Amino acid sequence: MVEFEENHRPLILVTNDDGFDAKGLDVLGQIAGEYGNVVVVAPDEARSGMSNAITVKHPLFIKKISQQKNKIIFKTNGTPVDCVKLALNVLLPRKPDLILSGINHGSNSSSSVHYSGTLGGAREGVLNKIASVGFSLLDYSPEADFSAAQQFVRQIIDKVLQFGLPEETFLNVNIPKGNQLKGVKVCRQAKGKWGEEFVEREDPRKQKYYWLTGTFQNLEPNATDTDEYALANGFVSVVPCRLDITDHSAVDILKQQYSTNSYIKSKSKS
Amino acid sequence: MVEFEENHRPLILVTNDDGFDAKGLDVLGQIAGEYGNVVVVAPDEARSGMSNAITVKHPLFIKKISQQKNKIIFKTNGTPVDCVKLALNVLLPRKPDLILSGINHGSNSSSSVHYSGTLGGAREGVLNKIASVGFSLLDYSPEADFSAAQQFVRQIIDKVLQFGLPEETFLNVNIPKGNQLKGVKVCRQAKGKWGEEFVEREDPRKQKYYWLTGTFQNLEPNATDTDEYALANGFVSVVPCRLDITDHSAVDILKQQYSTNSYIKSKSKS
Repeated sequence: MVEFEENHRPLILVTNDDGFDAKGLDVLGQIAGEYGNVVVVAPDEARSGMSNAITVKHPLFIKKISQQKNKIIFKTNGTPVDCVKLALNVLLPRKPDLILSGINHGSNSSSSVHYSGTLGGAREGVLNKIASVGFSLLDYSPEADFSAAQQFVRQIIDKVLQFGLPEETFLNVNIPKGNQLKGVKVCRQAKGKWGEEFVEREDPRKQKYYWLTGTFQNLEPNATDTDEYALANGFVSVVPCRLDITDHSAVDILKQQYSTNSYIKSKSKS
Repeated sequence: MVEFEENHRPLILVTNDDGFDAKGLDVLGQIAGEYGNVVVVAPDEARSGMSNAITVKHPLFIKKISQQKNKIIFKTNGTPVDCVKLALNVLLPRKPDLILSGINHGSNSSSSVHYSGTLGGAREGVLNKIASVGFSLLDYSPEADFSAAQQFVRQIIDKVLQFGLPEETFLNVNIPKGNQLKGVKVCRQAKGKWGEEFVEREDPRKQKYYWLTGTFQNLEPNATDTDEYALANGFVSVVPCRLDITDHSAVDILKQQYSTNSYIKSKSKS
């Protein structure tokens, strides 16, 4: 279990899905250090697209990478969600005040929120009643330039520390690349999908295999209240995301469907 | 690409996260065969807890396991989401009429929906505009008894084929174990969390390692409109789940927070 000398400072957990040596994680850890004591727990290699996956088939190891006065860095062989679970259950001396995930190298807007390991880490935080934010920069390069993004990351941390977040809600923050950022837009998740295209290859034994690739498609390009619109127009998008994914309006519709006696009909099939 | 002789029948894709040889998948495939031509695409081994994870770091292989007149079974080295993507992009001759995932060996109620590979498969279906349902039985045993569950699986498939589902909504169906099932309750996802407890061990080189385990906690035990309540009282729970996870009520709250000029404040920190 970690300990800090100045233990009155806020305790901030930082994770990501690009791995412990990613530039975006380093930037986020440095910014977090301006606000409190920082524990970084990150995957030992890139775990992109891991969503909320947990590791149940093999055990998890934790290794300390470095220790400074106000920042300790660990890596694990787990997913981002595993990293948060290990931090909360094994490493941290108390519940952290804030969980920050990222800064991801690449967009996590629209429906990508469902696949993102970065957002998996943030979701796990809120499941444990801790204010949590996932940050992503729209630049997949390992050498991406985070300099313009930093002031917005600070602005959002300021707001979360000042106002807190609604219970059961985490933030999905995406930041355009480039230096001409216009400000922050709070918005909703755009409807979008990946036009999946697998690249087909053949191995030396003539077996076909497939690499996942794909192109994102915004399914509501004319809507102006979405994260996709904000990002396309130079704004940082902030989408508050729920833990409760129940479609409450559908509950009543379905209740009516199930109130009719189709039980007999279905039974006659068996 | 697969072909069926009787190609006027509905086309149903079946997947799961317990693997191609799980009993629950076999049961679901058989029921699906009563309604149409069935293509099963399932992981080559158990991929529990994989959520919406996708495979980006290695290529995917597909192997045909068996072919009957109206049912073809494939396994892949991917996650449930990968299985659906491969089916839609590589294997199926057309968009399927229905995607069924499961029947999972073990519960996926409440917040488990976020970790479940079974539900990942269903979510991927709806992302592709296909009516999709995930089924789980509250029995982790590989030899679980699905006999009482089957009539409810049929009832739900009947309803989905008759009424369709709201756009962007999939169903999370959980079924109690035992033979005393009382009926179907359409309900909402209970607030719940896993009290994570890692089992700590030591390897021969004296390195500590951790196995993920945990106990589920229903955070609203007195609510009567939740899936947890339905299941505890002998009902099959049906929760309609949204793709849009935006917390729409929080959008307005956050907009107000971000309308004040804290930009200057945050900038002064850098």
